[in-house]
Amino acid sequence: MASTTDPLPSWHDSAVKKQIIEFVTQTTTPGSDDFIAVADRIATFDNDCTLWSEKPIYLQVYFAMDRVKAMADQHPEWKTTEPFASTLKGDVEALSAQGLDGIMKLVMASHGNMTTEAFHQAVRDWLKTAKHPTTGKPYTDMVYQPMLELLDYLRENDYQPFIISGGGIEFMRVWAPEVYQIPTENIVGTTLKTEYKIIDGKPAIQRLSELDFVNDKSVKPVTIQNYIGKRPVMAFGNSDGDMQMLQWTKAGPGPRLSLIIHHTDDKREWAYDKDSSVGRLDKSFEVGQKEGWLFVDMKNDWKTIYKP
Amino acid sequence: MASTTDPLPSWHDSAVKKQIIEFVTQTTTPGSDDFIAVADRIATFDNDCTLWSEKPIYLQVYFAMDRVKAMADQHPEWKTTEPFASTLKGDVEALSAQGLDGIMKLVMASHGNMTTEAFHQAVRDWLKTAKHPTTGKPYTDMVYQPMLELLDYLRENDYQPFIISGGGIEFMRVWAPEVYQIPTENIVGTTLKTEYKIIDGKPAIQRLSELDFVNDKSVKPVTIQNYIGKRPVMAFGNSDGDMQMLQWTKAGPGPRLSLIIHHTDDKREWAYDKDSSVGRLDKSFEVGQKEGWLFVDMKNDWKTIYKP
Repeated sequence: MASTTDPLPSWHDSAVKKQIIEFVTQTTTPGSDDFIAVADRIATFDNDCTLWSEKPIYLQVYFAMDRVKAMADQHPEWKTTEPFASTLKGDVEALSAQGLDGIMKLVMASHGNMTTEAFHQAVRDWLKTAKHPTTGKPYTDMVYQPMLELLDYLRENDYQPFIISGGGIEFMRVWAPEVYQIPTENIVGTTLKTEYKIIDGKPAIQRLSELDFVNDKSVKPVTIQNYIGKRPVMAFGNSDGDMQMLQWTKAGPGPRLSLIIHHTDDKREWAYDKDSSVGRLDKSFEVGQKEGWLFVDMKNDWKTIYKP
Repeated sequence: MASTTDPLPSWHDSAVKKQIIEFVTQTTTPGSDDFIAVADRIATFDNDCTLWSEKPIYLQVYFAMDRVKAMADQHPEWKTTEPFASTLKGDVEALSAQGLDGIMKLVMASHGNMTTEAFHQAVRDWLKTAKHPTTGKPYTDMVYQPMLELLDYLRENDYQPFIISGGGIEFMRVWAPEVYQIPTENIVGTTLKTEYKIIDGKPAIQRLSELDFVNDKSVKPVTIQNYIGKRPVMAFGNSDGDMQMLQWTKAGPGPRLSLIIHHTDDKREWAYDKDSSVGRLDKSFEVGQKEGWLFVDMKNDWKTIYKP
C-alpha cells in the first residue's frame, strides 16, 4: 500500500479488515494479476442494516407510520383495518408480525398519489424533526461509521459505490446523497409505478399507489444489470435478501468480494440473525460460508458503530 | 470563455453553436447567476438520429433481421408470416410499413431467450462484419462527429451525458461505451424482462421474449427519474419520441436547454421530418418552436456529418 495512514480507523485490525484492504490493493495496483480497469470498479451496497440500522423495524416504516397517522382523519376505516389499526396505536411489534405484506400496504397508502417533487418534500420535512424511538437519534445519524470509512476508501481507489436496496428509491434519494456521498443516479431501490403528466399546465412525474418492483432477493441481480450493466466486483449485504446479489457478484470471473455484515452487538446496536423477521440472516450465512464470502462480526470487528 | 480553441470545430459558427457555448459557459462559471452545481449537470441524449443515423430504418433492426435470417431454418412458418416474410426477403420498405409493431415482433423473436452474456456476444460478433446497406460503413462509424465533439465539450465542463433512447439497452451497451465514451451505467433504452437464474450450476441473467418497457415518448421522463433521479439541465433529441423528455427538461427551474436535431441534409445524410415513418418530427417541431428549444439544421449547421 502506498498510503501509510489507516483507511479504516473504526475497524479493529482483524482478518476481515486485512482481506478488504488486500483485495482493494490487488485490484487497483497497475501490473497486478488481479488489476481491474477503473470503469469496471463497481461496488454494490444494500442499505438497511448494511449502511444504517433497520431495528426494531425498517426505518422507512416510521416515515410511513407518521404519514398514515397524519392522514387518519380522512380514513376512519383505518381504525379497524390492518395494518392501519396497529399503526395508529403505534404497535410496531404487531406491525412487524404482519411481515412485508403489512409494510407494503402501509407504503402504498402513504407513498403514492402525489408527484415525485411533493414526495421528496414530505421526506425532507419529516427528517427535520423525526427521531428514532429507541436511540433518540435523528434517523440519518444511525449510519455505520465503519461503512462510511469503507465508502470513502473505495472511492479513493476509484471504486464506484451503488446502493441496491429493498428500501424506497425516492425515499433514499432525499438523504442518502448527502449522508453517503452517493449521487441519486447510483441509488436504486423498490420502485412505485409513475406517470408523466401535465398537471395544472406543468409537466410532472406522478407517483401511483402501485408497485413497479420490490428490489429484493433475485430481483437485485436483475436491477444491477438494468441500472449498471456490469457485474459488481464487490458486494455488501446483511440478510437473506442480499443472497442473490452476493452470489451473482462472487460468481463473476476474476477477483470478486462478497461480504455479509453480521449483527452481533446487542449492546451498541442489535444482535439477530436467523430468527429475526426483519433482516433475517439464515440461508445467506450458509451459502456464504460455502462460497468464501467475508463476514463482519459487528461486535468484534468494529470499534464504533454509529457516526460520531 | 477561458479556452481559446474552438470546442466544436465541426460546427459552423451559427446561432445555435453560439447559444450552446453560451449556455455551458453560464451554467459552469462560478459566481454566474445561472451556475449549476456539478452533481446536477445532467445532459440526456436520444441515440437514434441524435447521435447516429436511423435510416432507412433503425440500425438495430438490421441486427434483428440478420439474426432472424440465421434462425430461419428452425422456423419454416416465417416464410409466410409477417414481419418475418419481408425480413427474409430483405424488404426493408415493407418492414418499415409495419411500423413499431412489426419491429417489436422481430426484436422479440431475435433478442430474447438467451443470457445477457450470450446476447452481448451476438452483438459483438455481428458488429465485426456488418455494414450499412447504403453507406457501406460499419454501423458504429455512422455516428455524428459534431455530437462526439459536443459530448467531449460537455464532459470537459463536468456535465454527465446519459443516453435515454428507444433503442435496446443491452444492444447499445455493447458498443456505445467505446464509441461515445459513455459508460454502461449511463445508457438506458428499451428493456426486455429478465430473470436471475442458476443455469448449469452458474448464476445468469436470462432474457425473456417479453417487453419490460419501450423507452419512448412519455416513458422517457419516467425513465430519467427512475435511472437518474434528477431532471436534466440539457436534453437532445430529434423526433416526436423525444418531445416529453425535452418538455420535462425545459420546464425545470433555472437555466435549461432543449435541442432538436433536424435532418435536413439529403446529400450527406437523409432529409426528413413530418412525413417519415421512422424518426417522425412533427409535433416536437411545433411545441419546440413555442417553448424556445434550439434547432440544429444539419445541412447548414454542421461542417461534417460522420466521424472521419
